[in-house]
Amino acid sequence: MKLLRVGTAGAERPALLDPDGATLRDLSGLVTDIDGALLADDAALDRIRAAVASGELPVLDSDSSNDGGVRVGAPLGRIGKIVCIGLNYHDHAAETGSAIPAEPIIFFKAPDTVIGPEDTVLVPRGSLKTDWEVELAVVIGRTARYLDSAEEGLAHVGGYAVAHDVSERAFQIERGGTWDKGKNCETFNPLGPWLVTADEVPDPQTLGLRLWVNGDPKQDGTTADQIFGVGEVVRYVSQFMTLYPGDVINTGTPAGVAMGRPDPKPYLRAGDVVELEIDGLGRQRQVFKDA
Amino acid sequence: MKLLRVGTAGAERPALLDPDGATLRDLSGLVTDIDGALLADDAALDRIRAAVASGELPVLDSDSSNDGGVRVGAPLGRIGKIVCIGLNYHDHAAETGSAIPAEPIIFFKAPDTVIGPEDTVLVPRGSLKTDWEVELAVVIGRTARYLDSAEEGLAHVGGYAVAHDVSERAFQIERGGTWDKGKNCETFNPLGPWLVTADEVPDPQTLGLRLWVNGDPKQDGTTADQIFGVGEVVRYVSQFMTLYPGDVINTGTPAGVAMGRPDPKPYLRAGDVVELEIDGLGRQRQVFKDA
Repeated sequence: MKLLRVGTAGAERPALLDPDGATLRDLSGLVTDIDGALLADDAALDRIRAAVASGELPVLDSDSSNDGGVRVGAPLGRIGKIVCIGLNYHDHAAETGSAIPAEPIIFFKAPDTVIGPEDTVLVPRGSLKTDWEVELAVVIGRTARYLDSAEEGLAHVGGYAVAHDVSERAFQIERGGTWDKGKNCETFNPLGPWLVTADEVPDPQTLGLRLWVNGDPKQDGTTADQIFGVGEVVRYVSQFMTLYPGDVINTGTPAGVAMGRPDPKPYLRAGDVVELEIDGLGRQRQVFKDA
Repeated sequence: MKLLRVGTAGAERPALLDPDGATLRDLSGLVTDIDGALLADDAALDRIRAAVASGELPVLDSDSSNDGGVRVGAPLGRIGKIVCIGLNYHDHAAETGSAIPAEPIIFFKAPDTVIGPEDTVLVPRGSLKTDWEVELAVVIGRTARYLDSAEEGLAHVGGYAVAHDVSERAFQIERGGTWDKGKNCETFNPLGPWLVTADEVPDPQTLGLRLWVNGDPKQDGTTADQIFGVGEVVRYVSQFMTLYPGDVINTGTPAGVAMGRPDPKPYLRAGDVVELEIDGLGRQRQVFKDA
């Protein structure tokens, strides 16, 4: 299923993209939100599936969605934490001149950085090095703690989404301390449009990821190039922290970021438009403005 | 005021420690929880103050607190994010052989690491270097974004609490990537017992912090030794990310951690008991067990 949340920021209602790929169905009669509790509730998910199959779900009336339009929010509410994996594609490690990590690099984004897939992204004040990163986001569906295998890791995934791991490279690398300093500026994690349930993504290591800036292709990778695959990432992270339903893992970006290009590097500025997509998970488009 | 949350984990009710220092008063008739929304609501805080002054708040009946006892939870619900400042005391930087940071080091703890001040802390599986860190936690009371001065930073603080920034040094330093890997194990952030409102802490740079392991004094510092004071930390962090009411900043630890001692370093093991306190903010006690 393709689950999403529609409405004004902070007041989104749960919805579903019909298998026809065009019609939005209102889920608010069945569930209160798309969140970790729902992903962990097989019976509730089955009720949604049954309602889809029966064709009884009402078409979403965009005029009643509280915003007079069809703003799509992030497809997950009440996110607990966002764990990010750094340098997780062979080609991206190479373009940044980094060694292949011996084990996954972990950093964090705060859930308050999450915005909808078409929302405005703000270039931070004083930023000269705001960069793009298309990423496969993994949404945890079952509590994961000290897992034994990558297979078990994969079994704890509730769904997948497109994430944009916007990054300020000077803040991240040149200001001391950890990468977190350049990863947590407001609006720095567009998510969505859909949360695609794991049953519809039988192999997360075969997905193409692409990103354009002002229409020019910049990233064109595949999750087949991930150094640590989704199941292994979940297993690994679960050795260091407990993952709960509704937690998100941004699993890294392929080559093609601004930082990996020759000088002058084409960092993002107000007015730039970034579009990104992942096979089967939908497409995002953000206009950048100054904070 | 000294605000706290009492009851079983996940079902705490809001309470207040009477100015007599002994009686717990039930706040659940006045507010639903102790959280960022409350700290940002001056009228609600004034209603509590008036109720305290009038003596009308009911004494908390511990038998009705859902756990048959008086478990004290973390004094803050719905925490948004926990920003941590590394190496922020001159004496701690010295003991770890680190240079004085030119600007604050930022890392993160996930809110799901927070437990009550007397709850059990789990030594992670495979851990040989679990360490202690007493810290002054700052709770944000007003949204802080691109603040101009340390004075403004201080004005955005809603309250203070004792935090235990439990740390696994091998995970933090020897496993690649950022410090976050050693800071986010489950139960790694005991918080409380109280959230002391900022009006009762006129100068946060004069507080003594102490920690004992199995009764032996290990840390005995003062926030006067902080490299970056509370107001400056809030101002600085607000340049890189927006701080919201209910966010927490752990402002660093003074000298005396296990990592700073001669070999064999006395890292924590199951059975150890850690006690810690900060002037005016109360005292914690945790028994360590194996995860």
